Amino acid sequence: MRLEIICTGDEVLTGKIVNTNFSYMSQKLEDVGLAVSWETTVGDDRDNLLHAFQLAGERADAVIVNGGLGPTVDDLSQEVAAQAAGVDLVLNEDWLARMEEFFRRRSRVMPPNNRKQAMLPSTAEVIDNPIGTACGFALDIGRARFFFTPGVPRELRRMLEEQIVPRLLAKSGKPVAIHLKRFHSYGLGESHIDTLLTGLEQMAPDGGVKLGFRSHYPQIETKLTVRGTNMDDVRRKLEPLAQQVRKRLGNFILAEDDDTLEGVVLRELTARQGNLTTVEMFTSGQVAGRVAHLAGAEKVFRRGIVARDLAEIYAAVGLDVAPPAGELTRETAEAVARAARVTGGSTHALAVLIELDEGADRIDFGGTICLAIATANDASSRRSRILGGRDWVRLGAAEMGLDCLRRYLQGLPVVERIDFEKV
Amino acid sequence: MRLEIICTGDEVLTGKIVNTNFSYMSQKLEDVGLAVSWETTVGDDRDNLLHAFQLAGERADAVIVNGGLGPTVDDLSQEVAAQAAGVDLVLNEDWLARMEEFFRRRSRVMPPNNRKQAMLPSTAEVIDNPIGTACGFALDIGRARFFFTPGVPRELRRMLEEQIVPRLLAKSGKPVAIHLKRFHSYGLGESHIDTLLTGLEQMAPDGGVKLGFRSHYPQIETKLTVRGTNMDDVRRKLEPLAQQVRKRLGNFILAEDDDTLEGVVLRELTARQGNLTTVEMFTSGQVAGRVAHLAGAEKVFRRGIVARDLAEIYAAVGLDVAPPAGELTRETAEAVARAARVTGGSTHALAVLIELDEGADRIDFGGTICLAIATANDASSRRSRILGGRDWVRLGAAEMGLDCLRRYLQGLPVVERIDFEKV
Repeated sequence: MRLEIICTGDEVLTGKIVNTNFSYMSQKLEDVGLAVSWETTVGDDRDNLLHAFQLAGERADAVIVNGGLGPTVDDLSQEVAAQAAGVDLVLNEDWLARMEEFFRRRSRVMPPNNRKQAMLPSTAEVIDNPIGTACGFALDIGRARFFFTPGVPRELRRMLEEQIVPRLLAKSGKPVAIHLKRFHSYGLGESHIDTLLTGLEQMAPDGGVKLGFRSHYPQIETKLTVRGTNMDDVRRKLEPLAQQVRKRLGNFILAEDDDTLEGVVLRELTARQGNLTTVEMFTSGQVAGRVAHLAGAEKVFRRGIVARDLAEIYAAVGLDVAPPAGELTRETAEAVARAARVTGGSTHALAVLIELDEGADRIDFGGTICLAIATANDASSRRSRILGGRDWVRLGAAEMGLDCLRRYLQGLPVVERIDFEKV
Repeated sequence: MRLEIICTGDEVLTGKIVNTNFSYMSQKLEDVGLAVSWETTVGDDRDNLLHAFQLAGERADAVIVNGGLGPTVDDLSQEVAAQAAGVDLVLNEDWLARMEEFFRRRSRVMPPNNRKQAMLPSTAEVIDNPIGTACGFALDIGRARFFFTPGVPRELRRMLEEQIVPRLLAKSGKPVAIHLKRFHSYGLGESHIDTLLTGLEQMAPDGGVKLGFRSHYPQIETKLTVRGTNMDDVRRKLEPLAQQVRKRLGNFILAEDDDTLEGVVLRELTARQGNLTTVEMFTSGQVAGRVAHLAGAEKVFRRGIVARDLAEIYAAVGLDVAPPAGELTRETAEAVARAARVTGGSTHALAVLIELDEGADRIDFGGTICLAIATANDASSRRSRILGGRDWVRLGAAEMGLDCLRRYLQGLPVVERIDFEKV
């Protein structure tokens, strides 16, 4: 099945908005085994829209169109869709009633121009939008089935996942039971993970499992897309493979599915009624920024201290004389973490200290990281070097700090060689 | 002149990479008055690439192709370009020598597969890439001039700005002297700015000035694109209009061109040999995160304190009993800023305190912000309410804190009604 996407709107075409709707759709479709083969972006322009619909209608079996369903004059999707399909626009009374109800529930009167959103091509199948006034719909243009979706990201996501994906899977004849299992890791490079997972896809007795990766430094997501005749079949296939991934990637897996590193840290601390003080140097608060705003963090995150200078950090946690520049050690980090824990009155403290190299920023610019975790009875620490420019060092150090805290809380070794550090 | 862009590569088509190259190109071209009318994304697939080149060659006058110039087998741009133009691929000896030199300077031997990057269509005009091994080139396909560019963002940017834009402007017959003037503001909505600047374009005596906006909450960028016969002409046109923008947007302009809010704050503090302590609640370190890592901030940024809880903030700055929840005032913020300044031993302190509404996150979820700036002799403060969900409140509060500090340092009123607050 050949699948295309058409994105519409001047804001996207002029680059005012980065087209994250497209990358989201393409990833989501790939996750269920539907590859997009062509994407077109056109502005709010009748001629270009019509031409784009006609071309895709000649080439593809299914086309998703995003945007242009709004109430304003530059929203042209319904009108041009009707023209391309050679049918009339007609008022959909049901959708009009839905919209009026939508406004009534919000104690507002529907503005007259919203009526336009209920004008659909006469052959259109309505696709529900439970959270907005833009009416999704499907119809045939040329040899392809077209699916029209709203530009508002949360409305698009809900419509794509709940309604369009099932229709596309049915149309493609693929088994409809499908599940995406995700593992988030830190410390192993993509090719390293690929090697560690050699032969994994072949372990599914009757196929239907696809391995993929998504890299967003410093984390890498390992994805298993499992297809089966029903969800029991999917679970039966997935379970032994998921175990294999956990075994082969071991301590490097920091979370699964919708969990996040900071979420896991927060949960571990909450479970033991713990709380946290953080101290950061040069990361300019990224560690605190990952944790402090989370729902539930108000009980766990006690205090964060951010500074550029080791002497300043010493002063902030009530320590005396800081070691001179160039002499950052694990012992320093441990002393800072211990003192910060006392100052913040918390069960746990994490200190992430960085000494940057000298000179201008460049691709092999690096920093030395000393980090430590302290509790009332104990301190753990690690020293590492990361290269890759100032931003890279900063991102890497914040990630390493949180991941070492996760390891500490989970009883795993805090020091384990990772692919991103230089020794 | 009809201009199209073709983006190539499986990583972009599958959404693994968000297509920021496209939005960058389209914005940059619009800034010089060249509108993109159509964009196509295809993967590393011979048939789709050829078809995309042919279609664009029939429709457009100029086409920019991005990606596919690398050394690996899935980099197909030169090969398919030659096929579409009906010419042979030939080895470009000059580029081969350049590449060998490129590797030699880095004390490396050129791998054999890089030779592929010097194979160009026989009719190609070489477009220099001074910072990489991917050779840019131009040639005619159909009725259009095609420009092939590398996928590496910094190589693309340099090639587009230095070499392709001038060629496109020459081809379009537009005057070549062009300048983009940018004003960054916080506190006025886009339509408000648009109204304040009514009639501005018409003030240029002989036209050639275009007004545009780019909104990235909480800031809005106001852009003046000025075209003239030469740079003197451009400057002559720009100066009175820039003065008008400064006059009409007044204190809301926080920076111009490449300057940033945090950069202006850092510069103002540096100029008076000042330094800064920050205290943040719920923004989870975003204020510190904007300033602390900047080059030069090591002399200015003293200490940042992050907490979720007012009692914790009181403890961290050495104050006694925090007021109970629900009683956050400007006076509280001033007391915290004053105490933080003493604790941090700095000339200035900024405190951004937030009391969130109760309940689940939603689009009209809000927070009350009390912020204060303290020096040895003085304190200034402001109270505000921002709605729009937790992330929106957090972003808005951090921006408001930094902007009030900017206003304070520049001797402007700290309290001035903004469009984004509820009163």
